[in-house]
Formats: sequence, C-alpha cells, structure tokens
Amino acid sequence: MYEGIKGFRDFYPGEMQARRWAMDTVEGTARRYGFREVGTPALEPTEMYVDKSGEEIVDELYAFTDRGGREVALTPELTPTVARMVVARQQALSKPIKWYSTRPFWRYEEPQQGRFREFYQTNVDIFGSADPAADAEVLAVAAESLTGLGLTGEDFEFRVSHRDILGGLLAAFDAEVDTAAAIRAVDKREKIGAAEYHDLLAEAGLTYDQAAEFDDLLDTPEDDLDELVAFAGTERVEAAVSNLASVLDAAADFGAREYCTLSLDTARGLDYYTGVVFECFDSTGEVSRSVFGGGRYDDLIEGFGGQPTPAVGVAPGYATLSLLCQRAGVWPEETLSTDYYVLRVGDTRPVAARIARQLRDRGHVVETDVAGRSFGAQLDYADSINAETVVIVGERDLEDDAVTVKDMGSGDQVQVPVDDFPGDRERPTYGDFA
Amino acid sequence: MYEGIKGFRDFYPGEMQARRWAMDTVEGTARRYGFREVGTPALEPTEMYVDKSGEEIVDELYAFTDRGGREVALTPELTPTVARMVVARQQALSKPIKWYSTRPFWRYEEPQQGRFREFYQTNVDIFGSADPAADAEVLAVAAESLTGLGLTGEDFEFRVSHRDILGGLLAAFDAEVDTAAAIRAVDKREKIGAAEYHDLLAEAGLTYDQAAEFDDLLDTPEDDLDELVAFAGTERVEAAVSNLASVLDAAADFGAREYCTLSLDTARGLDYYTGVVFECFDSTGEVSRSVFGGGRYDDLIEGFGGQPTPAVGVAPGYATLSLLCQRAGVWPEETLSTDYYVLRVGDTRPVAARIARQLRDRGHVVETDVAGRSFGAQLDYADSINAETVVIVGERDLEDDAVTVKDMGSGDQVQVPVDDFPGDRERPTYGDFA
Repeated sequence: MYEGIKGFRDFYPGEMQARRWAMDTVEGTARRYGFREVGTPALEPTEMYVDKSGEEIVDELYAFTDRGGREVALTPELTPTVARMVVARQQALSKPIKWYSTRPFWRYEEPQQGRFREFYQTNVDIFGSADPAADAEVLAVAAESLTGLGLTGEDFEFRVSHRDILGGLLAAFDAEVDTAAAIRAVDKREKIGAAEYHDLLAEAGLTYDQAAEFDDLLDTPEDDLDELVAFAGTERVEAAVSNLASVLDAAADFGAREYCTLSLDTARGLDYYTGVVFECFDSTGEVSRSVFGGGRYDDLIEGFGGQPTPAVGVAPGYATLSLLCQRAGVWPEETLSTDYYVLRVGDTRPVAARIARQLRDRGHVVETDVAGRSFGAQLDYADSINAETVVIVGERDLEDDAVTVKDMGSGDQVQVPVDDFPGDRERPTYGDFA
Repeated sequence: MYEGIKGFRDFYPGEMQARRWAMDTVEGTARRYGFREVGTPALEPTEMYVDKSGEEIVDELYAFTDRGGREVALTPELTPTVARMVVARQQALSKPIKWYSTRPFWRYEEPQQGRFREFYQTNVDIFGSADPAADAEVLAVAAESLTGLGLTGEDFEFRVSHRDILGGLLAAFDAEVDTAAAIRAVDKREKIGAAEYHDLLAEAGLTYDQAAEFDDLLDTPEDDLDELVAFAGTERVEAAVSNLASVLDAAADFGAREYCTLSLDTARGLDYYTGVVFECFDSTGEVSRSVFGGGRYDDLIEGFGGQPTPAVGVAPGYATLSLLCQRAGVWPEETLSTDYYVLRVGDTRPVAARIARQLRDRGHVVETDVAGRSFGAQLDYADSINAETVVIVGERDLEDDAVTVKDMGSGDQVQVPVDDFPGDRERPTYGDFA
C-alpha cells in the first residue's frame, strides 16, 4: 500500500464537488468581467524565480535538474509565468490583457491549517493599464467572487494599502533603510511579537525610536492620510495617497468599496509589488491567516525584458477560501447528487440502456447497472449516490410493456408505460405519473 | 527574457478556449454517466511507478529527491494514483466507483507532433465491476465524448482487442515467451518495420517461424475468432474470446458498437492491462498516432495492497484529440467572444459601471474601460475582443439621459433612454431598440 506525499492532498468526489463549485464561482465571475482563460506549464526555468522573486520563495521551491540538464522548478506562483507569456507576445496582444487561470502550485513549506505544499489558486490579472479602474476591477472580481459564494460584507474584508506609502515613509527617515526587508517585516507584523518586529525593522536599518515612530504612522486612520503626506514631504507619498484614494473611488463605482478597509501594515511578502496591495481577511478573525491577496506590480514585465507594462492582479486560493466558507456556513454539503438510477432486473439491458441514454441526452446525471448486480444491491447503490428517481426496468414489468418509476425521497412508486418514459418530458419524476 | 521549457506549452486565450470546449465536452459526458470528479496530486512516490508500471514509463519520469529526502516523481499517468486512492478508502467507498479527472501529466519523451512532455488527459475509470457492461460503458463514454465534439463514425474507430487473446496465443507456442515483452512488441507493430518487429518477438522468445505464425493469427477476422480458440486449445483464450464478444454486445446496447473494430494487434504498451484493451484511431489515418486508449486492469488494485478489485478505464488526451478534430473540421475557431463592451466617454464611470454590472448579473461577458482610453482606442479594443454589442456611455448623451447601443457586426447604432438599458431585457441588442 502506497501513501501520498506529505502536504499533497487527494480529493474524493464529495469534497471535490464542493471545491469545483467554489472554483466555478470564481472563474465564472472572472469570465463575466471579460477575463480569458490561459493554460500554463507546471515547470519553469528555476532562474526565473531566482532572478525575480523574493528570496523567501526561492528557498521554498521544488527545484531539480531534469534529464536534459535543465534547472527547472515546479511553479510556486503564476505571476512570473504570465509575465513571461506577455513578454513573448507583447506586440500581438491587444491591451489591456485580461487573463485568468485555475491550477495547482507547489511550495516546500511546513503544512498547517489552510496551507499545503500543493495548493490551488485562480489567478486574475490585468496587464497594460496603470489606471486606478484596473486595480478596482480586480477588487470587484474578488468581491463578486466571494459574494457569489454566499459570503457577505459581514464575513470578509479587503485590507488595502499602497507600497509607496510604506516605501515613501521609510525613505523619509534619516536612515539607510533596506526597503524590501522593512516591508517584509511589516508583512509579518501581525504574525510575530512587537519585539521581534522591531528587531526586524532595526535589521532593516531603522533605529528603535524610528521603528516606533514608523509603527505609529502605520496606524494613521483613513481620514488623516494627509498627515502621512506632511510627514514625508515627498511627491512619492503624495502620489501614493492620491492613487489609493482614486482606486477606492473607482471601487465604489464598481461595487467593491464597501469591502475595503485602509490597512497600512498590509504589505504582501513578495518583492515585486509596486502600488496598491490588498489582502482578504475573515472579518471575525476565526480564520486567522490571510485568505488571499493581490496588488499592482508595474515593474515585473520590464524586469522580464518586455516593454514597460503596468499590471495588477489577485489570486484567490481554495484552501483558505474553503475555511472561510465553512466558518461562514456557506460551504456546500460534500455529498454526491444523481438525477436518475436506471435499475435493471433480468435480461432487460437494451431497454434500460435506451432509457438511460434518453435521459442523458436531456442533460441529466444517470447511472445504470454496470456490475450485473441484484435488485437489492442496485437499490442500495442508488441510495448511496443519492439518486432522486429510480427507474426499474424489470423482465415481468416489460412483459406488460411497463417500467416502474420510484421516488427515492418518499419511497413512492408508480407503473408507467415503457413507451411513455421519458416520452417528451424534460425531467420526468414520480409526480408526473402518480 | 525567459523561455519556457521544451515540450511544455503556453496556451493563450483563443487556443485555450477551444481546448476548454473539448475538455468540457468530455467531462460533461462523463458526468452524465455518473462519473464523479476527483482531485489528485502532481507528485507521487517514485517507487509507485518503479514497482508497478512498465519499465518504459520509469525511464521517462520527471523524478527527483525533494528537500525532505523523498524520492518523488511528477505523475506520468493517473491510473496508479487513483488505484492508491481506491485502496486507501476501499471499505468506505460504495462500488462501483466511477471517477473522472482532467489534468496535466508529465513524461520526459522526445516532443513530436501530438506529443509533448506536459500533456492533458481526462481519465475516466470504473472500479469494482468485472461485468462486460463496465467495459462497454467506458467505450460509450469515449464514443459519446467524440460525437459530442462533432465527430462521426466516419472520423474515428476504436480498435478493440483482449490481452488474454494475445497472452493465451503466446502461451500456446512451444517456447519460453516473455509475454510482457512480446505484447510490447505487438504494441509497436504498426510503428516499426516487420524485420524489427520479428526481432523483438524473437527476443521475447519466439522462433522466427513462430513469430510469423503468431503474426498471421493476429490477422484473424472477427467472424473466425473460434479458430484462435481452436489453435490455443485453452480455456484462457476461449474465455477471452467470449468476454470480448460480451463486451461488444453490451456496447451495442450502449450505442458504442458501431465505432468498434476488432484489432488483435492492439495491445497497449502498459503492463498492467489484463482484459479488453482498445485504442482510438483517426479512420482516415491522417493523424497517424493513436488518439487515446483504454482497457481493463483487474490486478492493479490488488497489486497496490487492496482487496481484489476489477477495473476498467479510458483517458482521452487533448493533444492528439485536437489534431483529430482539426483534421475532421470540427475544431472551433480560436478566437475570443464578448457579449458587451461598455464604452465610457468622459466622466461617466458610475453609469457605465452600473450598466456593466447589470449585464453581468444576467450572466453575460462584459468588458468596460479600465485603462482611461479614448473613444477610438476603446472601439478598437472592443473590436479586437469581438464584442457583439457596444454600449456607449458619453457625457453629452447622458445630459439627454441617453446611451448609444451599437451593433458591431453591422455598425448600426441607436440612442436609448439610459433608464431603459438594460431595463428588464435579458440580452438587449441593437435590434430591440431600432
């Protein structure tokens, strides 16, 4: 007996059906906004991540040398791949480019609740627009995906910030600051103690007094953002505050503003973000990890050798999203559903098969006997797959040109002329004949 | 600029849309037959393949040692994984177990037409039935998937055989035959020259005279299968011939018989097949490779440490299937489609966003400006995404409480009261207002 690999999951049908519902909901939302599906490889050159992503990711790669001597890695995220694809066809693609894709990714991290070594995300990205409406559309797709799952503004919030507010404030201190390191520290602020957090800021170049002051600035309420502009006294912070306000304005038009909260310590761990960043959290805090996040990464395409191309995206992940849905009571029951079971007794396969095919032609989920089993065993099986209606095709019934239609909920059944089933009915049930 | 890895493909939206249509068609067919989706990991323990699959596969693995010292491999096929999953929950699962799954697989083979190192399949399997109806249902799902794509009996054929006919005939020769090696030789018969083929049979233990006689036996026509039974004089061949006939009978009831041709040299390369095997081919021969295949593998679950559990499955692959569809002229155009583009001129975003949201609520694909672009640039973009209808929301129009509805096919346009769009129409177009 073999065992699967730690951190990798098998999804049996009930659970898979619930996950497919969640994925269909998110993908359906992205499609209605005009995002187009792309298909992408599971392996990429390792150097793509070594060169461009934060060191944190590189340490977590499933990387190896293939039989042809190539250094390759299982993709830990989609963004570098879609950036590569945009660069490869930059001239031919009309902009904005709006893409989505659902697939697994792989990171060698310690598995814990809501985190696995293989995990599934739907990436939704816009390339070629620096307009705040693009950031807002990404927020709107995320919000509408969640409300499409049955979640409400009581259940989740988007904590929104801007990388240049953080970066601009850090630059305003009289210190040599490693901005990327400081932003990574802010990203961890809620997960680690205050002492460790200030140590990390100190390592990044701030004195402990500066770290404390920086920390206070991060708690500036939404209405007082002008104070940050005044503190920094730079165009950079002024532009960032103004851009953030424009994104939130556009989000209001697009119906997503009500889910957004200003949260300056939302930083996102990845180095490539450049503008607005946001993370989705459980409003109740019961799911403690960030559910998913997104943001603007205007420099990545150029960094990959392409024309300067602004970009913004979001990537709902299903491990944490299912936890949020479960907490909120909107996760579906993980059970099978079946429209019809066509039960065969004796040598009636031609008629049973004809009925099954006609019901399938109408789009229904129809099972029939493929194991040569007894009446009782078939009925038990029909029950185990939650069949709504069982059509019994028995030898003796057929001598009278009849079949029996049984409602599995009530147990009621009725004889029906075989030529009249399904007849011209789209979805015949016991009630049609009783 | 980075390049993707040889044998791995990027699918841009047009091509992806066509592939998604093919996958949806196959999956929809499997679902209507009551197959349930499962989700499975991309990595498995390498030993699972080393122990159980043919040596041919092992040489082609993307295998490596992970950071925790585990020997792991990118899954080259699904069957061992689902066998592992069946064994893990053997008691809890009601039988027959009917599963499907669409995902990529990986093999380090030389890429050629219709063959890539990363390739996508929909696996469809039944566990727990030895009844010929199970083999026939798998054939029926395969056939209905192909006819669902628009293919007909003129386009494809299923070449059907039985492993025990091959194995039983080989056993009937007065020779020490390596059956697996001989069957692999038969599997290659059409791809290699007669001399090489006879050499392989000789390596497997037949004399050259026996190889020639064996070869003649493989050409036995469907009506003369009794001659094979007579030649072998064993229950094994008699049972295999009888089982094959029963499967074809059941396939007749299930509507798949007309696509099946007897073809005794159809062997399938994998060692784990035990009963009926089949491969789908382009009837015209223009696509020369096997499109996909399947068969019965009754010993695998027990070999994986489970209770003896018969099994049968098929796995349509999309690289070859798309070649067949293209050859037959049923592959869709690889272009985007869009129901509406809501064009914004001036400061009209709240109204444009409201209209876009209302159209999306009705399930349509709707894009709107997220790049702050000019009228002309937006109209070009709407054209590039093949928008059917453009709704122009202009500042001056809005002063008269109107928007303009433009049919992109004809270029005709009409002014419509803003409060009347979309109104209570499900899919308003130019024709509704002209």
